Amino acid sequence: MFLKNAWYVACTPDEIDGKPLGRTICNEKMVLFRGDEGKVAALEDFCPHRGAALSLGFLRDGQLVCGYHGLVMGTDGKCKAMPAQRVGGIPAIRRYPAVERYGFIWVWPGEEALADPAKIHHLEWADNPEWAYGGGLYHINCDYRLMIDNLMDLTHETYVHASSIGQPEIEEAPPATRVEGDTVVTGRHMQNIMPPPFWAAALRGNGLADNVPCDRWQICRFTPPSHVLIEVGVAHAGHGGYDAPAEYRAGSIVVDFITPETDTSIWYFWGMARNFAPQDATLTQTIREGQGKIFSEDLAVLEAQQRNLLANPHRKILSLNIDAGGVQSRKIIERLLKEERDATQEVSAS
Amino acid sequence: MFLKNAWYVACTPDEIDGKPLGRTICNEKMVLFRGDEGKVAALEDFCPHRGAALSLGFLRDGQLVCGYHGLVMGTDGKCKAMPAQRVGGIPAIRRYPAVERYGFIWVWPGEEALADPAKIHHLEWADNPEWAYGGGLYHINCDYRLMIDNLMDLTHETYVHASSIGQPEIEEAPPATRVEGDTVVTGRHMQNIMPPPFWAAALRGNGLADNVPCDRWQICRFTPPSHVLIEVGVAHAGHGGYDAPAEYRAGSIVVDFITPETDTSIWYFWGMARNFAPQDATLTQTIREGQGKIFSEDLAVLEAQQRNLLANPHRKILSLNIDAGGVQSRKIIERLLKEERDATQEVSAS
Amino acid sequence: MFLKNAWYVACTPDEIDGKPLGRTICNEKMVLFRGDEGKVAALEDFCPHRGAALSLGFLRDGQLVCGYHGLVMGTDGKCKAMPAQRVGGIPAIRRYPAVERYGFIWVWPGEEALADPAKIHHLEWADNPEWAYGGGLYHINCDYRLMIDNLMDLTHETYVHASSIGQPEIEEAPPATRVEGDTVVTGRHMQNIMPPPFWAAALRGNGLADNVPCDRWQICRFTPPSHVLIEVGVAHAGHGGYDAPAEYRAGSIVVDFITPETDTSIWYFWGMARNFAPQDATLTQTIREGQGKIFSEDLAVLEAQQRNLLANPHRKILSLNIDAGGVQSRKIIERLLKEERDATQEVSAS
Repeated sequence: MFLKNAWYVACTPDEIDGKPLGRTICNEKMVLFRGDEGKVAALEDFCPHRGAALSLGFLRDGQLVCGYHGLVMGTDGKCKAMPAQRVGGIPAIRRYPAVERYGFIWVWPGEEALADPAKIHHLEWADNPEWAYGGGLYHINCDYRLMIDNLMDLTHETYVHASSIGQPEIEEAPPATRVEGDTVVTGRHMQNIMPPPFWAAALRGNGLADNVPCDRWQICRFTPPSHVLIEVGVAHAGHGGYDAPAEYRAGSIVVDFITPETDTSIWYFWGMARNFAPQDATLTQTIREGQGKIFSEDLAVLEAQQRNLLANPHRKILSLNIDAGGVQSRKIIERLLKEERDATQEVSAS
Repeated sequence: MFLKNAWYVACTPDEIDGKPLGRTICNEKMVLFRGDEGKVAALEDFCPHRGAALSLGFLRDGQLVCGYHGLVMGTDGKCKAMPAQRVGGIPAIRRYPAVERYGFIWVWPGEEALADPAKIHHLEWADNPEWAYGGGLYHINCDYRLMIDNLMDLTHETYVHASSIGQPEIEEAPPATRVEGDTVVTGRHMQNIMPPPFWAAALRGNGLADNVPCDRWQICRFTPPSHVLIEVGVAHAGHGGYDAPAEYRAGSIVVDFITPETDTSIWYFWGMARNFAPQDATLTQTIREGQGKIFSEDLAVLEAQQRNLLANPHRKILSLNIDAGGVQSRKIIERLLKEERDATQEVSAS
Repeated sequence: MFLKNAWYVACTPDEIDGKPLGRTICNEKMVLFRGDEGKVAALEDFCPHRGAALSLGFLRDGQLVCGYHGLVMGTDGKCKAMPAQRVGGIPAIRRYPAVERYGFIWVWPGEEALADPAKIHHLEWADNPEWAYGGGLYHINCDYRLMIDNLMDLTHETYVHASSIGQPEIEEAPPATRVEGDTVVTGRHMQNIMPPPFWAAALRGNGLADNVPCDRWQICRFTPPSHVLIEVGVAHAGHGGYDAPAEYRAGSIVVDFITPETDTSIWYFWGMARNFAPQDATLTQTIREGQGKIFSEDLAVLEAQQRNLLANPHRKILSLNIDAGGVQSRKIIERLLKEERDATQEVSAS
């Protein structure tokens, strides 16, 4: 149960560098590649000749060549050529709208006519030289909503990430949650606490003392279909916290694009964007490795939770105040899913 | 199809040393841990908050802490505390009666009200300084009754364990099988034979000549739900066999606690208790390694048999005289299963 | 959907050298072994006593002994002996006609009364000192007909085997396909081309220049149930091509015995028979390694194709002119399957 008429992150440019990539997005088995003039494309991963996987093929002159019998597929899903064959009668395969933007390849697994690139989530920090970004990709066997719950309730940091970003003060600061249209914002502000190891390192990376009391903030923003962007940071205490001037703070944006693969698995694109020391590639790499390690700690927890829920389908789970961010996000998803279903039925009925 | 109202071995103390253990027993997914004052406990492995696996959590002050959001679970299945939350409204999860006795943790996967620790199988050799015990655990993908069949018909030793405890004389000595209440006893006595390698080593370990004719015995006892304890041994021939004085014999008890995991898989706790040289830890280790190697030879046989039976559900298997021990054991299990079903229906009807 | 009343290659002699072999052929789980006087036999892999896998047993005096309780099984499927037991009442298990011929063990998974060894495909090159043979076995998760399609349309060589036997001239030479009774022949002749790497090596192995223009041929022959034998070769151009005298040519027969394991998996026996330098064992080994590497390139393609077809059961695949060999082969299979079904129904009705 996920929105199909939405833009999802499908892959990063390095994954389609010089070769096609097979990936399932929202139960749609796709081949992603860079075609004519470098434009990205997504097609069904199914050769119209005999059903071979196009993702096992190769690229030639901006077209995708099937690795079995050499059909040449254009970015529009039409067969352009085949050795010693006329191709007029070969049916086109489905193409999915695909756009490269902000350092990601985005696809629209639903109805092509509705795909408006203007609806791609705007990332103000991308393509901005004052910011740096590093990230990675995990495959996790869980419903995408379990990951949204996870990210919209950061009290889990104290337990899952005890040695890096967790600290008891997180759970002592009750979150404030609000809904703004289709966006859910849940935030926490902690005053006058010592920075945990990850943030101590970030302060040092930013040229700031790491052994003084700080204010810390976590402001999670859910937007459909399944994006969670989190403003996080610390500032030396007494300078305004979240609003402190740049010389007292180290902040960044945790980026989480959660792309459903199937009903119970996801492609999880995680990363961090920061607006300090953006030219420092070593720092980017250090943060990336640290974040990758921290975020990998969620995998076992989420996969075991998913197995438990599948084994106990009729069992209810609780929603406490800390869960408000996930609860509100799910409500928005439910409403949009209903709208998508209703729109489809209208089309069918008309 | 296994008895639920029965005590099964769930694990050994080393498996819950300082951390919880997740294990499925009779299709019940449990978390086992040592709680208040060192008492063992078994709960559903399902956090009442969001369904996380409690077995991925940790222990703190004799309580189990969920590794996701920090719920503190008592040994009674009730949530005792949660960071910054009231816990009165959090429903309890199921607890399973659990008892530590004789060097094992026993659980009762059925109706709690019926769980009487006095019904735990008495092990006369446990907690007795004149005896020593060593054992191990195997996971096997087979119905628990196939393992009972295996242990209640030791003619398989000649084939499966040809190089250690098997010898042709086993199959030449017909077994005598009798039923005593809920217990099945099937025994074999072989006269004036040469000891096979395992028993030659045991004679040496006991300070006895290993190259003389011996009498050998195997007396298998099945008791519900699925325990098989086997008196085995050899004595120098001419001294009374099973009744020979201690200075002519080397004997021991093969211990087999077969705990169903699912309908077609088991946790197999195997071991050997002996009343000679009980202080000799090196001998315990040597026997344990030898037995572990021998018992591992059954795994492939049983798992292939299980696959064959699953693939041929309507095919009948034969019961010959050598199978009497298993046949009688299955009859007792069937009767007790019927009693368990009838009792449940009475409760439901009343 | 495969023919059951047919001879299939089940294994090679080295696979049953001194021990039984368990293998599923056409959904029949068999144990293959060499019994009395070296004759090959195939039985159900199911001990009539308790369902143990006979393939885990061993051979003694030309009989198969069950590794669990020692039942001695004859090549006729009857229990010949069992330790300390009468065996008259033990039911026989199914036997499958089995014949050793041409260096292969052939089995007939269907109705025993119809199994006529004279119907085994004749291999004129086997048991002939002027020929040498080398081959191997792959397990592939695909319907056997996908492999027939593959072999009856060698245009795929240009893509799948680009670095060894593929060359663009293959797809430029349209194939000619004809049906002769139950046989389909599809052939290609290429004139005045440079030999690709594999054939250059074969020319050298045959003592011929490898850097001169050649004529090349590929003549694929399908015969039921699923055999494809392919005459392949090159000759120095201008000497008659396929009909060139031996001193100008290097030719061989590609051997493909495709044995269904299940509906979507096969045992693929591949090899090459050649009538040049037949005594040169090193050459045999070199060719075998080269062919093994080339043929392994088909595995990923076929398995991905199979997954795609299973995921899209209602989707039609195309049949172009290059597919004529496979299409005609499938038509013959369909007709014979219908005949087999009709014959079974007649027997049932009578």
